[in-house]
Amino acid sequence: MKKSLGNKTLLYPTPVCVIGTYDSSGKPNVMTAAWVGICCSSPPCIAVSLRKATYTYGNIMSRKAFSVCLPSENYARHADYFGMVSGKDVDKFAASGLTPLKSELVDAPLVKEFPIAIECRLHSFLEIGLHTEFIGEILDVKADESCLGADGLPEIEKVLPILFSPEGRRYNGVGRFIGRAFSLGRELRKDA
Amino acid sequence: MKKSLGNKTLLYPTPVCVIGTYDSSGKPNVMTAAWVGICCSSPPCIAVSLRKATYTYGNIMSRKAFSVCLPSENYARHADYFGMVSGKDVDKFAASGLTPLKSELVDAPLVKEFPIAIECRLHSFLEIGLHTEFIGEILDVKADESCLGADGLPEIEKVLPILFSPEGRRYNGVGRFIGRAFSLGRELRKDA
Repeated sequence: MKKSLGNKTLLYPTPVCVIGTYDSSGKPNVMTAAWVGICCSSPPCIAVSLRKATYTYGNIMSRKAFSVCLPSENYARHADYFGMVSGKDVDKFAASGLTPLKSELVDAPLVKEFPIAIECRLHSFLEIGLHTEFIGEILDVKADESCLGADGLPEIEKVLPILFSPEGRRYNGVGRFIGRAFSLGRELRKDA
Repeated sequence: MKKSLGNKTLLYPTPVCVIGTYDSSGKPNVMTAAWVGICCSSPPCIAVSLRKATYTYGNIMSRKAFSVCLPSENYARHADYFGMVSGKDVDKFAASGLTPLKSELVDAPLVKEFPIAIECRLHSFLEIGLHTEFIGEILDVKADESCLGADGLPEIEKVLPILFSPEGRRYNGVGRFIGRAFSLGRELRKDA
C-alpha cells in the first residue's frame, strides 16, 4: 500500500544547474535552478523553469539566450549560494570569486570553474503558473577536457554533478555504476 | 580551455522515469523516459518529452493522463527493458512480471514495485520537434512507506533512483550526501 504525499513537486533526482545570463548593463549573473530537463533531441533543447520574480527571467527575455552550467560537487556551496541571493542586489561572480567566460555563440556567460556549460539560444517560452518554462535550443556544449572519457564524451564520474532532492532540500553526489542502458534489459526480451 | 562537443543533449544527471498509460483497449503500458523535469511549482507540474512514434504518445493524447514512476536501482533492468520494446508489440507488464496498479485519481496505471509514482493529469503539450513535451499537472505523489524519512518525505538514499547519462548511455546510482540546500552557501553571503 502506497502512501499519499499530496500534489508535491517530488522527482528524484533533479539536476543542480546554474543558469548564466547578462543583465541590461552587461553584468554577468548566475542563478541556481533544479526545474530543468532535456525536452527534445532534434532540435536539441533544454527546458529551464524560473519564477518571474527572478533577475534571470528578465535577462533571458531581453537577451534571448542563457547558459546551463553544471557545477561539480566541489562547487556545491557556490551553487547553493547562487540560489540564495538575487543578481538584483549582488554581483554573484564577484562575491563568489568565480569567473565569467563570454560565450562566443550566445549572448550569455559561462562559469569557467564548472566542468560543463550548455549554450542556449531562447527557442520559446511557456507561462505555466508560478514558473515560466524557457526552452533553450542547445547550440553547443563546452566541457573541460578533464571530465571526458576515451570516447570524447563526458563521464558522469568525472563531471561529478550534484543531485537535488526537492522538499527534502538535500544535495547528493553521483553513486556507483549500475549498468549500460539499452543493454541491461536485454535478458527480459523474449525476442532477443 | 573548454572543448566544444557540439549541439548534444548532454545533462547530468537525467532521471530514469517510467511513464504509465492505458491504451485504447485498457491495456496498461510503461515506457522509460529521461527527458523529464519538474517545470512548475504552482500548479505543480512535470514535463515529459516523448517521440510521436511511441505508443505512449497516443495513449496520453487519448487518456489525458499519465503516471511518472521512479524505479529503484534494483529495477534497473526492468526500466531498461521498458525503453527497448514498444507497447504496440508487447505487454510489458506481463513480460516483466511487474504489477500495474490502477490510479484512483487519474486514468493511468502505476507500477506497484517502484517506490514512487507521480499521478498526472495532462495540462498541456507542446510540439517542439522530434519530441513532444507533455506537461502533466501533479495531482498526487504515492510513495512506499519504506522510502520515507522521519519527516514523512522520501529520502533519496531510500528511494535509490537511477541516474541516466545521455550519449554515454550509462546508469548510475545515488552517491554520498553532500550537504543541505539553502544552507551550504551561507558562508558566501556577506549579509548573513
